This record gives sequence, C-alpha cells and structure tokens, in this order.
Amino acid sequence: MVTLDNIKVAHIRISPFIHRTPIQTCKSLNKLTGAKLYFKCDNFQKAGSFKIRGATNTVLQLSPEELMRGVITTSSGNHGAALALAATRQGANVQVIMPHNSSQIKVQNVERYGGKIIYCEPNHESRESTLIQMVEKTSAIVVHPYNDERIVAGQGTAAKELLEDISALDAIISPVSGGGLLSGTLLAAKGMNPNIKVYGAEPIEADDAYRSLQERKIVPNKTVDTIADGLRAQIGTITFPIIQELVDEIIPVSEEAIIDSMRMIWERLKIMVEPSSSIVLGALLGKKGLFNNKKVGLILSGGNVDLDNIPW
Amino acid sequence: MVTLDNIKVAHIRISPFIHRTPIQTCKSLNKLTGAKLYFKCDNFQKAGSFKIRGATNTVLQLSPEELMRGVITTSSGNHGAALALAATRQGANVQVIMPHNSSQIKVQNVERYGGKIIYCEPNHESRESTLIQMVEKTSAIVVHPYNDERIVAGQGTAAKELLEDISALDAIISPVSGGGLLSGTLLAAKGMNPNIKVYGAEPIEADDAYRSLQERKIVPNKTVDTIADGLRAQIGTITFPIIQELVDEIIPVSEEAIIDSMRMIWERLKIMVEPSSSIVLGALLGKKGLFNNKKVGLILSGGNVDLDNIPW
Repeated sequence: MVTLDNIKVAHIRISPFIHRTPIQTCKSLNKLTGAKLYFKCDNFQKAGSFKIRGATNTVLQLSPEELMRGVITTSSGNHGAALALAATRQGANVQVIMPHNSSQIKVQNVERYGGKIIYCEPNHESRESTLIQMVEKTSAIVVHPYNDERIVAGQGTAAKELLEDISALDAIISPVSGGGLLSGTLLAAKGMNPNIKVYGAEPIEADDAYRSLQERKIVPNKTVDTIADGLRAQIGTITFPIIQELVDEIIPVSEEAIIDSMRMIWERLKIMVEPSSSIVLGALLGKKGLFNNKKVGLILSGGNVDLDNIPW
Repeated sequence: MVTLDNIKVAHIRISPFIHRTPIQTCKSLNKLTGAKLYFKCDNFQKAGSFKIRGATNTVLQLSPEELMRGVITTSSGNHGAALALAATRQGANVQVIMPHNSSQIKVQNVERYGGKIIYCEPNHESRESTLIQMVEKTSAIVVHPYNDERIVAGQGTAAKELLEDISALDAIISPVSGGGLLSGTLLAAKGMNPNIKVYGAEPIEADDAYRSLQERKIVPNKTVDTIADGLRAQIGTITFPIIQELVDEIIPVSEEAIIDSMRMIWERLKIMVEPSSSIVLGALLGKKGLFNNKKVGLILSGGNVDLDNIPW
C-alpha cells in the first residue's frame, strides 16, 4: 500500500529531474465559477505532462541490470514520452507501444525523447498482447503507465507541491483515467489534510471509474470515444482500491464541457492545456454548487495538444 | 524626452496595478536556435498584453477634472482593453474607437473591462476623423496608444523588469508597430546597459518603421495586410526619433515566419501568444547568425488570440 511517506521519498528522489511547476490563478474564472481556483500547471512539466513524475520515480529504482535490459510500456503518449525521457537519461533503451491513431504530437514527443515506437491497434487487447510479445522477445522491464505503486507515489508529488504552495485548499480536482494521478493525489492530499475533498473528473464517454465505484468492482469502459485522449485507459487493480476508499466523488464530464473548458483556459489563462487536463474545469463548472466560495486546486495534467485538430 | 528615470518612476507608479510577469525558458528552443532565450511573458499581463503598463502610467497622471471628462482612444484592441481597465478603475468613462473588422476576442476584451466601443473603417484616416468627431462631442481626454511620453515610459517597464531578472542579456527583441514598446524598451535597456543590442521585429507587410529608418524620415505603411493585428499602426513622431537614435536594427519578418513561430511557442512553451508577439521569435529564427550563443530576451507582448481564426 502506498503511503504519504512513499510520496515524500519519491519527491526527494525525483526533484532534481522534474520542474516544480507554478500555480496560476485567474480573476475572471474565479468570478465566473464563484470559487477561488488554483491551477497546478503540470502542462509546463518536462515532456509536457505530470507523467514524468511517476516514470522518473520508477526508473530511478531499477537496478543497473534492469536498466541494461531496457524498459517498455503501453501508453497513449504522455507516459511514453515521459518514460523515454526518464529512462534514456539513465542510459536505458525505451520501447513504447502506442495505438496507430495516436495524435501526431504525442508520437513526436516519444521520438523526441529517444523512445522507439511499436504500433498496435487502438484497443486494450491489442496493446496487452503486443506488450507480452515484445517482452518475450526483448526481456525488457515493463513500466506500467499507472498500475504500479512507484508510479502512484510519483504522481502524488503534484498534489503534494500544490498543497505545500496553497495550504488552505478546500478541495482538489484531478482527472481520472487509469487512476495513477487520482490515487496519488488522494494519498498525498488526504494524508496532508484529512478534511480536504478530492474529486476525480472523468469523461462520460470513458466512465469506467465512475461505474466501477457504483458497482463496487472494476468494470470495463463501454466506450472510449472521448477527445480526452489521455483518459481512455481502464482503471487499475492497484489504483481502484485507493480511489474506492478515499475519493469523495467521480464527476462525469461531457465532451462539450471538456472542449468548452479547454477553450476557456486557453483564452483566460493564456496557457495550452490538452482536453484531458481541461476536464477538471469542466467538472467544476458542472457542479458549481459543490465548490461555491471554496478554494479549489485543479491539476492541469498536460499540455500536449494536437494543434492540427483543434476541436472548434 | 523620456529618460530611464521616467521609466523608473512609472514603474513605481504602476506596480500596484500590473503583474510582474514571469520569464520563461525552453531547452528545446535554445537547441533549435543556438541561442539562450528568455521570454518575457506579458501575454500573462492584466488585460492580456503589455499595454496596461503605458495606459496605467498615463491614467494615473490625469487630474480629477480630466478623469471626470472621460478618456478616449483609437486602438486595434489591446490598448483599448488596457485603457478600459486602467481608467474605469479610476472611475472614468472610456470610449474606444476600433476598426469594424477587429478580432472578436479584442472586442470582447474592451467590453469586459467596461469600455464603450465606437466602430470606424479599418484605415488610419477613418480612425483619426472619428476620434476628432468624438472629442468635439464629448470633450474626452485622448490617450494615444503610443505617441505619448507617458505611454513610452510605461511600456519601458517591461524591459526594465526583464533586465532586473536576467541582467546578463546580450540582446533584446521587441515587436514594433507604433513604436511605444520598442522606444520604451530602447530607453530602459540601453539606459541600464549601454552595451546591450536592441532589435525591433516588424511584419514585412507593415514595414513603415524599417523603411522610415532607411529613408531617415517617417514614411507611411504601404500595406497593413498582416496577421499580426497589433502591428498595423503607423510609427509615431515621438517614438520614431528614439528608435532612430538607439535601435540596432529593425528585422522584417514574413507572414509565414510569424505563423510558424506562433505555433512553435504554443507547442514548446505551452503558452498562448498572439502573432504580434511571436514575431520576435520569427525575427530571431530569420537572423540566427546574429544571435548565435547569445543570451537574448524576447518580449512576448500579448496573448489575445482569436481562437476562431487559427492560421494553420
């Protein structure tokens, strides 16, 4: 079981290799929402997303022998790019299995950081079978994008930084996909402040976490037809129990709200966030009553936008 | 004649009302350009651009009687929004004369800050005649967007902050339109460090400053057919002599280079800048030899992008 102490140790371990990202505020969005918003800008993080936190925490715990064998992962892109950066920095080869319909910028990101891409079909089964094949062939070490305690501890450092900078938060909203970021956020935030509320923001079009909570067991996504391409993964066996125990609510968000909030952040904060990030503002706007007059931290998880496919 | 002391006094005067904007760096752009780049992010400034600096410096020097009469300006938008914010904060009415083809976001910005918009034709003559008419009618005080010493002193505070934060710069690149920002930058930068090089970046499609320098007198724009909608103004009688005396070079930049550099900044820095800002990177990329291994400050003047008209 991951603890706040694991997150603290992870933070010390990875700090030389990551940015301490800034917190941004916006008067006009405060006015619009009736809340005080604190955006944790991991869109400015190395390799463009929070994923470098967990990837670095994991890679730095591999033995020299493991690094020699190289690492491999399945990823819609951001974890792949992050792992490529984290592992090549330690001299390891990196293979990244990606759906062939991944956005161009995410493909370029993986390649920029030295990762070798292995394409698969855009579904869970193809990803997993390709992974098994490649591990048999190359004996590379699998670094799972989220279902790994080292990853969870690493991702928790974003919320830790947020609460160190803004201690009096009433609530935090994090995106949820495979659950690495949300479970890390829950452990960090509730560990540092037992009274804080923590919410997950999930696309209605990929709502396995929401339904899994309702059914008290992991159920698969029915669709992954969401523009939030970082939020199409299936909740994990390690992350789900943490979320089930600690989360206050998973807020389902429509595609329209994801896109509207993305545009709003671009226009008002003047920063680039991907739809998988803007969903946290979409969640807040859909549940304004819950956050009225509250101080709310919103984790902007990444900024790797495909500028050839802007959704308006 | 504006001096560094005027800029220092302006800075003290306006500091409570503006953001001290951050400096951003980007390893991948350093690698690409062969220079060390320091981006001064006035795209994060209040009302979305550097214009609040000069507008605030001017409004704070108006008498109570002048404030009662209200203020008026011609503007492609950013100065209008800034003046609206600066003047309504002091209880003054604000009228803004804008071309009817101004981008929607700039119109909204002026309205958001309480300015009343008066539309005119998109040419210099119509703007000026509308201004004269409205001043006769309302006796409002004209706050010119750039051809005013108070404006020049205010705009110079951006470069002052930049050099306070990064003292060892070899060069600064600023956009040039009417010349308020460039002349203020020149006075601040050369005043603080006589050895620093200062360059203006100007669209080839609105190159009156470049040609005026060549001809040693103010000549009009031949075209203003540029996507950089903040850079279509005519160089001023107050700003031109300062530029003529102090600037190292005006670098003309193509539309293609403006657009490419805008996309590059969005993708790499993860921040929103308008084309009138990204032109500084376009200028640097077109003259790489000039900046090789140099520490270069780039003033990102604004972030008010029309997201319905992204140019790629």
